[in-house]
Amino acid sequence: INEPMKTFINEDFLLQNEMAKRLYHGYAKDQPIIDYHNHLPPSEIANDHTYQTITEVWLKGDHYKWRAMRANGIPEQYITGSASDKEKFIKWAETVPYTLRNPLYHWTHLELKRYFGIEELLNASNAEHIYDQCNEILIQKSHSAVGLLTQMKVELVCTTDEPTDDLSHHKSFGSKVSNLKMLPTFRPDKLIQIDAHTFMDSIDAMAKMTQSEIKDYKSFIAALQSRMDYFESLGCIISDHGLSHLYASYDQVDKVDDILIKRLKGEPISAAEAIAFKSKLMLDLGELYYAKGWTMQLHLGALRNNNMRLLTQVGADVGCDSIGDFEQAESLSKFLNALDAKGCLPKTILYNLNPRDNEVFATMAGNFNDGSMPGKVQWGSAWWFLDQKDGMEKQLNALSNLGLLSRFIGMLTDSRSFLSFPRHEYFRRLLCNLIGTDVQNGELPNDEKLLGGLVSDISYFNVKNYLG
Amino acid sequence: INEPMKTFINEDFLLQNEMAKRLYHGYAKDQPIIDYHNHLPPSEIANDHTYQTITEVWLKGDHYKWRAMRANGIPEQYITGSASDKEKFIKWAETVPYTLRNPLYHWTHLELKRYFGIEELLNASNAEHIYDQCNEILIQKSHSAVGLLTQMKVELVCTTDEPTDDLSHHKSFGSKVSNLKMLPTFRPDKLIQIDAHTFMDSIDAMAKMTQSEIKDYKSFIAALQSRMDYFESLGCIISDHGLSHLYASYDQVDKVDDILIKRLKGEPISAAEAIAFKSKLMLDLGELYYAKGWTMQLHLGALRNNNMRLLTQVGADVGCDSIGDFEQAESLSKFLNALDAKGCLPKTILYNLNPRDNEVFATMAGNFNDGSMPGKVQWGSAWWFLDQKDGMEKQLNALSNLGLLSRFIGMLTDSRSFLSFPRHEYFRRLLCNLIGTDVQNGELPNDEKLLGGLVSDISYFNVKNYLG
Amino acid sequence: INEPMKTFINEDFLLQNEMAKRLYHGYAKDQPIIDYHNHLPPSEIANDHTYQTITEVWLKGDHYKWRAMRANGIPEQYITGSASDKEKFIKWAETVPYTLRNPLYHWTHLELKRYFGIEELLNASNAEHIYDQCNEILIQKSHSAVGLLTQMKVELVCTTDEPTDDLSHHKSFGSKVSNLKMLPTFRPDKLIQIDAHTFMDSIDAMAKMTQSEIKDYKSFIAALQSRMDYFESLGCIISDHGLSHLYASYDQVDKVDDILIKRLKGEPISAAEAIAFKSKLMLDLGELYYAKGWTMQLHLGALRNNNMRLLTQVGADVGCDSIGDFEQAESLSKFLNALDAKGCLPKTILYNLNPRDNEVFATMAGNFNDGSMPGKVQWGSAWWFLDQKDGMEKQLNALSNLGLLSRFIGMLTDSRSFLSFPRHEYFRRLLCNLIGTDVQNGELPNDEKLLGGLVSDISYFNVKNYLG
Repeated sequence: INEPMKTFINEDFLLQNEMAKRLYHGYAKDQPIIDYHNHLPPSEIANDHTYQTITEVWLKGDHYKWRAMRANGIPEQYITGSASDKEKFIKWAETVPYTLRNPLYHWTHLELKRYFGIEELLNASNAEHIYDQCNEILIQKSHSAVGLLTQMKVELVCTTDEPTDDLSHHKSFGSKVSNLKMLPTFRPDKLIQIDAHTFMDSIDAMAKMTQSEIKDYKSFIAALQSRMDYFESLGCIISDHGLSHLYASYDQVDKVDDILIKRLKGEPISAAEAIAFKSKLMLDLGELYYAKGWTMQLHLGALRNNNMRLLTQVGADVGCDSIGDFEQAESLSKFLNALDAKGCLPKTILYNLNPRDNEVFATMAGNFNDGSMPGKVQWGSAWWFLDQKDGMEKQLNALSNLGLLSRFIGMLTDSRSFLSFPRHEYFRRLLCNLIGTDVQNGELPNDEKLLGGLVSDISYFNVKNYLG
Repeated sequence: INEPMKTFINEDFLLQNEMAKRLYHGYAKDQPIIDYHNHLPPSEIANDHTYQTITEVWLKGDHYKWRAMRANGIPEQYITGSASDKEKFIKWAETVPYTLRNPLYHWTHLELKRYFGIEELLNASNAEHIYDQCNEILIQKSHSAVGLLTQMKVELVCTTDEPTDDLSHHKSFGSKVSNLKMLPTFRPDKLIQIDAHTFMDSIDAMAKMTQSEIKDYKSFIAALQSRMDYFESLGCIISDHGLSHLYASYDQVDKVDDILIKRLKGEPISAAEAIAFKSKLMLDLGELYYAKGWTMQLHLGALRNNNMRLLTQVGADVGCDSIGDFEQAESLSKFLNALDAKGCLPKTILYNLNPRDNEVFATMAGNFNDGSMPGKVQWGSAWWFLDQKDGMEKQLNALSNLGLLSRFIGMLTDSRSFLSFPRHEYFRRLLCNLIGTDVQNGELPNDEKLLGGLVSDISYFNVKNYLG
Repeated sequence: INEPMKTFINEDFLLQNEMAKRLYHGYAKDQPIIDYHNHLPPSEIANDHTYQTITEVWLKGDHYKWRAMRANGIPEQYITGSASDKEKFIKWAETVPYTLRNPLYHWTHLELKRYFGIEELLNASNAEHIYDQCNEILIQKSHSAVGLLTQMKVELVCTTDEPTDDLSHHKSFGSKVSNLKMLPTFRPDKLIQIDAHTFMDSIDAMAKMTQSEIKDYKSFIAALQSRMDYFESLGCIISDHGLSHLYASYDQVDKVDDILIKRLKGEPISAAEAIAFKSKLMLDLGELYYAKGWTMQLHLGALRNNNMRLLTQVGADVGCDSIGDFEQAESLSKFLNALDAKGCLPKTILYNLNPRDNEVFATMAGNFNDGSMPGKVQWGSAWWFLDQKDGMEKQLNALSNLGLLSRFIGMLTDSRSFLSFPRHEYFRRLLCNLIGTDVQNGELPNDEKLLGGLVSDISYFNVKNYLG
């Protein structure tokens, strides 16, 4: 059973030439991890949670695996439903051999190997045995939430948090663990979606949390500022937005107060009014981020909750989102320009979900560097569906062709699972392999020191300098 | 002259490593062919037609070759005009050396070799000789319409038929040939295009064929159902739609009866009304397909008949179509969700013509699997312009990255020519080569049995199970 | 220091197999250059300008380098500002090691090697030394404007000129240099943008230049024709248009006279009126190009001047443009069809800036060939941001798959710098390598003569025949 692993995920996995091997083992492998964007639950870190089963830590929140299981014909009961942890694991194990060539096949075996020392290929026949084996290891201290992070040399995790979050776990975690920081990220999506049915609940929560009355745009912004101050007090240095595309209609910005007041009164607002509000609010938030020295992340292009049946039955973010085909260039340009023109464009990271937009995003980032620092506007790492070999290689190649790879701040997990950190290893291997292949083909100078510097910068030092 | 073929289209054509060779020769090569979507003329199969010239069977209906000849500066007379079969063949032969790196160069020589044993590279100097050689072979029984299919181990062809077709050839062919089935496919495009000038002719033909009066939406649907019953009685299991993009405007669905009545009376309808009609009709058809257990095919993204001169002079589908850049994601999502929400989404195959939409289609398919069967919603094989090495490899890679390759139902010819079946061979070679290359690179386990199963499933068994 | 060059940019740079080497050295390398589209300043050619510093000839107009420097955090002063030539060069040299994997890294070292014999990798430590070395060489006769062109075997340069240009430099240059022609290109962008604030200035300049009154559409077209006659008298054979996308709204074409008169009077025109004017004018220009036998170039898809700060501070075309995501297919189809239907579609070259549109453009070109000549409608070479290894390879591959590579008219520099001509070498190496790799993989016949013909045609003969 172990035989296939010898030629599959071995020491030189994904490293297809000598320079790639030298670069990975000499310059990338041992760098610490700064995971500047993920969706890890802060409570599990603060409480140093111990997992009872591999299902809990590996399948519970992972909509990538859920999609694969559904595509494989597994009933929902065994995915998000009432089946036992063991039953769910077995159904996943049955699905694994059907994920050949999907990133899940690599991730699954890389994670089983790195965290549990398992060298077998998971399938129906060894599922029970591996289930028990993992569970025994999971209860050890080395495999608690904090243990899983520190064994991967994670120095920093930036979680993703709503402005209304009390950040109690960030507060309690503090600097309890010497080598690991957990910082909150300010993600006000629900407060931007003025036309969503969830908006008033978010306003109410903000009012409560800030002990203020939100009655107009001014008091709304004041509440946001108050929360930003609180986030900052707990170390926040990054914000995040998830939008189908940017809003940049600035002809009605002076009506934003009226629009919000209408909405607060429960009166209907038009689509144009919603866009005017969102456009102005994004601008104001951009300015506030700039003032604080925060980095602004923009995740653009998802078409969410396509399947109403599963949305109703299971909820949002359960694997029924897909890549959208929205227009991105003009609104992105207008938004960034509006901030730049005022001299208050913050450090910005642009992420696109549709790879057809790679070149638009890569070239847009290049329009707004201003000499204040290297790589101020970043085109972010391949995201979500694109977080696989082809997707990452396309992003790295397009970035190389259209920008400065050497200033890239590199990889992040964006994950909900504590077992996803080998994705940094995966990314670093791919990066080293691309560069090594170029050397082999005579497309880069055969200069290990020069290229090693590039690799260690992208793996660790660039993001460290960027975030400050 | 034969020399180049030794290193060109030989036994290991497109197979660049050992595992690729083992997979192709051991698991793919000998599988039968289920060609579940093509445009073969049913009459030629039913009558077991014998071809008088290679021009008749190879050039007569092949708009790929026509485009290449036009791009090569050949006058229309020698393409679709009044020139003799021999003259047309010679002009094609002159063009062949100019198709280097176009799929036509591979297809041409693969087809000459597989069907006629020709090892030479076709060009102006050997054109007459090869013309005669092919014509002599074509009149043999082995090379009749049915002969051409059975020598390629074709078990099933699904032709493409209008609802108004009497299917007389499907009826007469029946089970005359023991190893070959021909089933009709229900393609009601002309009945959906309510705003086209051809609509009333199609309505009249439907009325005549069903001996009913079509006077409102109810009688229209009844006529469609009647034709679907008839198609079903002759074994139909698949429908097909060719649309620039889906229609999914559901705010006027209750007016669909009024809209159709207006149109039947010869009164003008608005663009919005046309879309409302198409949106509702697509939904109703989807439900009917579900009720029958049919598979619904959606071919999206062509921009047709760009060249009015040739449309007028030669007709539709003559090589003047191109890849469009329509928005696809939202309407596709709404349409599939509307059917899924009612619990009547049929088995569905989504095909995109623009490769920039690969990731949108691949991820959209993944939203609507419901645990009822593996791979219920399929992202279909690279289609039309994309039916070449790069196009197929991109589809296979994107499918691998974003879905389950192992559940893929694989290749179809979509062809109008009886000589196109080596495209299944071509596809299988590419598939084996991708997988073999992954093994060579350590990206897949070196496990011939596991990978051989994948290959034979995609070549044959998956589609057999899928269609039932 | 020289060591890396031995395995980097050596004789077989980018040539990864035997056939690639044979094709490049035997069929491509020694072909002359026809640079049918660039932005070289005619004055420098006419006056056979001698450059005082490498900064003047290499950095002064090169917005690719400017973008890279900004991304590297260099202040604008050292890019387009008041710093000395030497300071600017040093800042560029500091940036070069950060451009690893960007085309600038290849171009930089290829240009230093070909024009100055420099074998070192440029960086901060050797910057001063290389600055001096280049400057010494630049003042030699071999490195004057004409010298730089003729040492690269450039036979023809087509510059890019406004209709209001007096072409005095083209006139004075005439046939002064026996092996080098300089022809003007007619690019009337400013006269098309009726809604731009620059429109009236362009009209005034036209009126002055033609000594006519422009008071309506008829006199406007007459003035354009007069300038076209003048351009023709100086050898012009090509026109050029830079548009975000085509305009093809033909329902108001009869109002074009009213629209222009309004605008000439200083009255406001609507967005729809502007589009109607542009649509009609493009059609009329197309007809005029056809009548003259000129080739029409369409450069589509840029989103320009995204950064208002730099537009105000430095000007247009300073490296703040990006790739747009406009819809292209329908308007392009309508425009080409309208000309084709009238029988007056000129020879046409279509260029797209967004690589996601590659397949749309490649297939659109294929719709309008009419048997009058091979390759009448061309899909042009990878342009601007795409003018790098990946971009060119994608264009060559998509063209191969969807059209006739063998009829391709090949490369042009599109450059503002006299040192950019090694890009023809770069292109030819990539072309030979793609073809050689296909031979190695058994995807093309191993027939050097056949493939050598293809290579020399694309390098030189096709464009020579195409332009006539």
